[in-house]
Amino acid sequence: MGRKAVVLLSGGLDSSCLTYRMIAHRWSLLAVSANYGQRHKREVEAALAIATRLEIEWLPIDLSSVGSHLEGNALTGQAALPQKDYSQESLAVTVVPLRNALFLTAASAIALARGYETVAIGVHGGDHPVYPDCRAGFITAYQAMVDAFTEGRKLEIQAPFLHQQKSDIVAVGARLGVPFELTWSCYAGGEIHCGLCSTCRERREAFRLAGVPDPTQYAA
Amino acid sequence: MGRKAVVLLSGGLDSSCLTYRMIAHRWSLLAVSANYGQRHKREVEAALAIATRLEIEWLPIDLSSVGSHLEGNALTGQAALPQKDYSQESLAVTVVPLRNALFLTAASAIALARGYETVAIGVHGGDHPVYPDCRAGFITAYQAMVDAFTEGRKLEIQAPFLHQQKSDIVAVGARLGVPFELTWSCYAGGEIHCGLCSTCRERREAFRLAGVPDPTQYAA
Repeated sequence: MGRKAVVLLSGGLDSSCLTYRMIAHRWSLLAVSANYGQRHKREVEAALAIATRLEIEWLPIDLSSVGSHLEGNALTGQAALPQKDYSQESLAVTVVPLRNALFLTAASAIALARGYETVAIGVHGGDHPVYPDCRAGFITAYQAMVDAFTEGRKLEIQAPFLHQQKSDIVAVGARLGVPFELTWSCYAGGEIHCGLCSTCRERREAFRLAGVPDPTQYAA
Repeated sequence: MGRKAVVLLSGGLDSSCLTYRMIAHRWSLLAVSANYGQRHKREVEAALAIATRLEIEWLPIDLSSVGSHLEGNALTGQAALPQKDYSQESLAVTVVPLRNALFLTAASAIALARGYETVAIGVHGGDHPVYPDCRAGFITAYQAMVDAFTEGRKLEIQAPFLHQQKSDIVAVGARLGVPFELTWSCYAGGEIHCGLCSTCRERREAFRLAGVPDPTQYAA
């Protein structure tokens, strides 16, 4: 029995590779996955599939009541997903306010209640330009907020992919035998990956750059 | 129409007085109240009663899925409420991990989604010894975390009672005509206030110190 951590497992590529990486490093894991009313709720099923494959404890949490009040973005609100223009301005509509803060706070509270000393999150460098809560400054500030609660460093936030690109993560996952076909990235939330939204595009590109065969079926 | 703020309204004495104070200062308010699986869910009805009396918009949010995993404390778990020993060690069982962080993050996300620039919370000096997330250091660290997300001070966390005692808050509330009989403090969550738990004891004492008649019916 190694050290214990709560891992935020969305069911996407990054958090699935993170989970496999931590298992390889002999962590004992509790995976937490959030339904926050996202259009692509399907990712929660992917998270369950990964947790089941790894035989780790899995806790789904329901934040949909909060998500239902977060209008104006394309994931929990009615705004359209960008499918052609991937500029930062265009992708801003996919930012859910404080999403990682919500996930991290719920995961940290559960970790503290259970006496775990680590929470891990799969944020990475490729997300930095568009998503402020995927950057080092945010993770550092979040850690400081938890430290203020625990009065010292009693819970550590780990983000081992923080300075890596998505293609590096795919390479790590390939080495560890991550069942990529079980993971889900697409924001559109259809039956198969749309192939057009920003996260499908990034997924595809990451496999290509890593030189890893992409088992994903894309609609376009 | 004044400035707009999201106010965390638990239905207790402090947040109800805060809400009345902000209305007196001509804020336009959206009150957010959380069900987090607390034993004293009855406070959410109190929050609705206050919001209704003030004719302000009210949003209940459901965090009970997170709360259900926070074992080990007396509010969301099975631990017994202290009814005689009010030492800090004894009261530690009433600390829900990162409770104010959860409330503030949900309220802040909703504020950002709606373009509000302020979130207000009724933490006060009387809570400082036992509850780390009621202290200035925590509020400052929380603000810094939000600033990291918004890349600058775009959402301000206000905690005007931070350095006041509960009796000062009762005095403010009395001047503003807060309907104290509608508010709910008791952690035990019975039909009337138990009069024995730490928050009942503090409520009673605050009225006494403020020299304000206490309309609360206590069982003991």
